Amino acid sequence: MDERSGPVLALDLGATRVRAACVAGDGRLLSRFEAATPRELGPAAVVDAAVGLLESARDAVAARDRRAIRGVGIAAPGPLDPAAGRLIEPPNLGPAFRDVDLAGPVGTALGLPVRLERDTHVAALAEWEFGAARGCTDFVYMTVSTGVGGGIVSGGRLLGGPDGLAGELGHLVVDLDGPPCGCGGRGHLEAISSGVAIARAAAEAMAAGGAPGLGARATRAGGGTAALTARDVAEAEEAGDVDAARIMERARDAFAAACVSLVDILTPQAIVVGGGIARNQGDRWLDPARRLVAQTAFRVPRERVRIVAAALGDDVGLAGAVPLLRLATRTPEGR
Amino acid sequence: MDERSGPVLALDLGATRVRAACVAGDGRLLSRFEAATPRELGPAAVVDAAVGLLESARDAVAARDRRAIRGVGIAAPGPLDPAAGRLIEPPNLGPAFRDVDLAGPVGTALGLPVRLERDTHVAALAEWEFGAARGCTDFVYMTVSTGVGGGIVSGGRLLGGPDGLAGELGHLVVDLDGPPCGCGGRGHLEAISSGVAIARAAAEAMAAGGAPGLGARATRAGGGTAALTARDVAEAEEAGDVDAARIMERARDAFAAACVSLVDILTPQAIVVGGGIARNQGDRWLDPARRLVAQTAFRVPRERVRIVAAALGDDVGLAGAVPLLRLATRTPEGR
Repeated sequence: MDERSGPVLALDLGATRVRAACVAGDGRLLSRFEAATPRELGPAAVVDAAVGLLESARDAVAARDRRAIRGVGIAAPGPLDPAAGRLIEPPNLGPAFRDVDLAGPVGTALGLPVRLERDTHVAALAEWEFGAARGCTDFVYMTVSTGVGGGIVSGGRLLGGPDGLAGELGHLVVDLDGPPCGCGGRGHLEAISSGVAIARAAAEAMAAGGAPGLGARATRAGGGTAALTARDVAEAEEAGDVDAARIMERARDAFAAACVSLVDILTPQAIVVGGGIARNQGDRWLDPARRLVAQTAFRVPRERVRIVAAALGDDVGLAGAVPLLRLATRTPEGR
Repeated sequence: MDERSGPVLALDLGATRVRAACVAGDGRLLSRFEAATPRELGPAAVVDAAVGLLESARDAVAARDRRAIRGVGIAAPGPLDPAAGRLIEPPNLGPAFRDVDLAGPVGTALGLPVRLERDTHVAALAEWEFGAARGCTDFVYMTVSTGVGGGIVSGGRLLGGPDGLAGELGHLVVDLDGPPCGCGGRGHLEAISSGVAIARAAAEAMAAGGAPGLGARATRAGGGTAALTARDVAEAEEAGDVDAARIMERARDAFAAACVSLVDILTPQAIVVGGGIARNQGDRWLDPARRLVAQTAFRVPRERVRIVAAALGDDVGLAGAVPLLRLATRTPEGR
């Protein structure tokens, strides 16, 4: 078996679930295990759980595959340091996870080389290898979910910046007078288009007393202005609620503006859009972006770019371990 | 003499001036000629003028240098196709310059290899080689002048995208409800922070009758709401005019927001800022960007990034010919 096409172990460490798998070189999951992330027990417990799931994933495959495993690819929430294999200060995991070594203990326990990358970068690699960005040299991956994140591939390379942190697309400023972002900024894409932002906009509309339909829905959902999720707001729009429609339209317009910025700056062949909100909305989410890009981006890139839904589902963070383990070590090239 | 360090011929084709020089490998101009761009006579006349200036620049240097000249580097307004050596449809030159072959006739006339790049990319290369971005692997060059443009260097490479068109930083959307941009978009950086945008905002304020100080200045300048330039507005702010201050502050705030976007997305070591407006304003222009980045960008990149004035002056487009001629041909790399 070619060493570059052999199976890999994959770990997707999320804020709520840890998933582990043994993945064949063609992206098929040969085994798959998952559990709730024991976040409240701290980093050591999370690493133990991850190692346990990886061992299960390894032991569940045929001996021939097991012997051919070439390494472990880990997807985890950013910001993280891929070269050092450590988390930096991931807000989604909590303050206890600051500066935690993930690659070291996993590699020691499994006796395999380990490569760690930000979850959105791993998803970008997976879509590049197996999904909607196959054949591209230049594309942008965006995920619109609880938060907004992304990854950039330019000139055939994942764009990492000096320390692998680049591609934080949720923090594009699209409305400089806009609502505050969790990061301290204002009018960032994530502050308007993310699930958290949509729910917050609904809560604010209810608190201001101007959204009777949303208010009635919140009462049915258990009361309080914080009772509605982004999905509730999307459903209210479907049901004809004008306040919900205004909030969702704003979220889609901000996303569309970000796409124009990305098309003009990066001139990608594709913008691949994943994440729960984009997936649930489908073309309703993507069409305003396609229209605004067609109307206002530069001619050559706008005529080329495809704005499309991600092809891979929830296991995108596992499939991405295959291309992740093929990446050359990131060292800045000389000119 | 090492072929890679020998002198080059440089051409900087601007909308108002054409400049040509023979440039030593260390960036010194060994000769320099310039003339008004005969735009109104059409592309053939402009190419003739350029060739004439290049021949003068070549013939003015010592025979030893002349024999060592290794090629011609051309900076011209975008969008252009570097691989084909052709202009695409440069708005600053006019519709007659659509799809004009520049590299071909210059190469034939001079008997030398030619490389064409967008003026802002050449400026970025010059600042990288000789100026404020020396030693960087990752930086952003921005020019704030009549328009707003830029170039991105990431991982030690000029980021060109599939066809060399990437890096159009003037078209970052920073205010999705903002004023219209010349490109058809809305709220682009160029629509708020460029010289044209500042002058237009002043004209609109005067037309609305709410800017008496600017109106008086316009009358002194020859009357009419279009009588003020961005420099006039900046001077009015210096003199204490509140309407001018509001317009200039908005321009600086939009620029600052764009810098936050660029720091979070590209995590550069430096943002190098050139162009007449930024140069005239100095730290007054850069400080709001430094503050907003320090307050709201992600920790690792914000602690690293320097936001600094460009080190090279008007001849940046000539000095950049040296690194331009060293660039590898742009072909998308395999992974």
